[in-house]
Amino acid sequence: VRCGPILIFSPEAGVATEAAALINSARPDLVVRYASDAAAAIEALPGIEVLYGWGFPKTILANPPSMLRWIQKMGAGGEDVLQEVALSNRLLTRTPGAPIAATMSDYVAAAVLNSALRTFDGFEQQRRRHWEEYPVRSVEGGLVGVAGLGDIGNVVASRLLALGMTVRGWRRSETKGASTFPVYSGAPAFSDFLAGLQWLVLVLPLTSETRNIIDASALAKLAKGAHLVNVGRGELVNTDALCAAVQSGHIGGATLDVIDPEPLPQGHPLWDIPGIVVTPHVAGPLLPSKVVPYFLENIQRYESGKPL
Amino acid sequence: VRCGPILIFSPEAGVATEAAALINSARPDLVVRYASDAAAAIEALPGIEVLYGWGFPKTILANPPSMLRWIQKMGAGGEDVLQEVALSNRLLTRTPGAPIAATMSDYVAAAVLNSALRTFDGFEQQRRRHWEEYPVRSVEGGLVGVAGLGDIGNVVASRLLALGMTVRGWRRSETKGASTFPVYSGAPAFSDFLAGLQWLVLVLPLTSETRNIIDASALAKLAKGAHLVNVGRGELVNTDALCAAVQSGHIGGATLDVIDPEPLPQGHPLWDIPGIVVTPHVAGPLLPSKVVPYFLENIQRYESGKPL
Repeated sequence: VRCGPILIFSPEAGVATEAAALINSARPDLVVRYASDAAAAIEALPGIEVLYGWGFPKTILANPPSMLRWIQKMGAGGEDVLQEVALSNRLLTRTPGAPIAATMSDYVAAAVLNSALRTFDGFEQQRRRHWEEYPVRSVEGGLVGVAGLGDIGNVVASRLLALGMTVRGWRRSETKGASTFPVYSGAPAFSDFLAGLQWLVLVLPLTSETRNIIDASALAKLAKGAHLVNVGRGELVNTDALCAAVQSGHIGGATLDVIDPEPLPQGHPLWDIPGIVVTPHVAGPLLPSKVVPYFLENIQRYESGKPL
Repeated sequence: VRCGPILIFSPEAGVATEAAALINSARPDLVVRYASDAAAAIEALPGIEVLYGWGFPKTILANPPSMLRWIQKMGAGGEDVLQEVALSNRLLTRTPGAPIAATMSDYVAAAVLNSALRTFDGFEQQRRRHWEEYPVRSVEGGLVGVAGLGDIGNVVASRLLALGMTVRGWRRSETKGASTFPVYSGAPAFSDFLAGLQWLVLVLPLTSETRNIIDASALAKLAKGAHLVNVGRGELVNTDALCAAVQSGHIGGATLDVIDPEPLPQGHPLWDIPGIVVTPHVAGPLLPSKVVPYFLENIQRYESGKPL
């Protein structure tokens, strides 16, 4: 059975057009439309069987066309779709983390190194054309915890091990797997996992159990001066508690690629708190050349009735 | 034979006093003086047998006291002393690179990651409270060359290998050693070493052969958009040629912890060239607690007539 009409949606127009070109060239027999705003998406929607992309407009998710059978996320998360759409007899799939694990683990390694090397203090001095030595330290031997040990979290952990750090992991479920570093699992062990960490890296998905998992009491368990890195979801962290902990001096700083709320509004205090680095959700980029092959393989499975 | 009076000199007063305290507590039998400016040094100089530290005033090196027998640098370089002083029957020793290899390899790893992750573009956006995604890339598989494979260069190379990069090394002498990556050696092979590099890391000492080794023609051999990282000595690089290559777009940027001239004067164009990151010689910090033990061991060897 040939796959029916596909709508590609991405708020970044370049991603949508590039993904469409890749799919067209691999499968010229399929009907492929694309859109990057809600109005164009609604216009393209009639007859669509497959929705592919990310950042789907709520109007589409709230009223999916009756023909829609399958939604595939370009990214690793699916919680936004689950919140909005009654899936009933529809399929929801996501792209495995591997294609974005490389940039995400690079981002985490850089965040950890920059906090020890005071990279942003240096940058501020350069802006003022001011030359003054400041002491830096190495991350070697530093204690870092990685919360979330899926495809991405495991790559992140091995990068940090390669920097000579002492790594501790935490996973939500109590399933065991072989690991080259100590792994804590399940909610009851989370508190022991956090105790005394100098760096905490969040690579968790957002679920009802992980929402707000980093609150004031979690932050209090970290070592004084600890640095938080969040590449999971903004809602994992209670932003007000984080701001308070950094301003009190207990937490040394944070590097946040995902934030609650996102995009961060102009007037939000997080922009200006010394020690807090904010980046606009860049660490897990959706490169069509990396993610479209997964979708193409899933189309073949979809057509032949195999599991996606 | 007991070691004669020691003068510790460091332009950073804290380093001089901390080193003096460490030596005094380990060897209360020795005479230890310290200074952090030329006037105090000249006053403390009469009768000094050993000079320990860095950044020695030229007036001292030009007219060393007749009793002076041994100069030990706190850092890994010795070329500044060699330029100024007629060593004749005096000893010149330096501190091996190992104590500073950890921070220096962290610095290089961060510089390479930050260039791929556009960390400084993100920082500029944060300053303007502007939220706009930008594409980043991973360093995984990127081609990086490490020029200088001493104690420090080898640690730097292994850190870059650990980031999943393809590493190529260059050493000045043609001696061979086992290595897990391709090594070019000797001046004739330097040009092949440079060809097509996406990142070039300089960990070389300054000698008559390495001065200005990175000039316009060397820069032209790198891949378009390449990034230069210098943690060796500022004079390895022709600063004017670097500025021109970055401004022409052939070189994507540079991260310079050592610069010619240093400190960088307020009005120097390097401060403001987009893509060029300047830090004030922080990557190889002289932590007295790390370097003084090497000096104390050398004192014992000096006293018992063993090689330093």
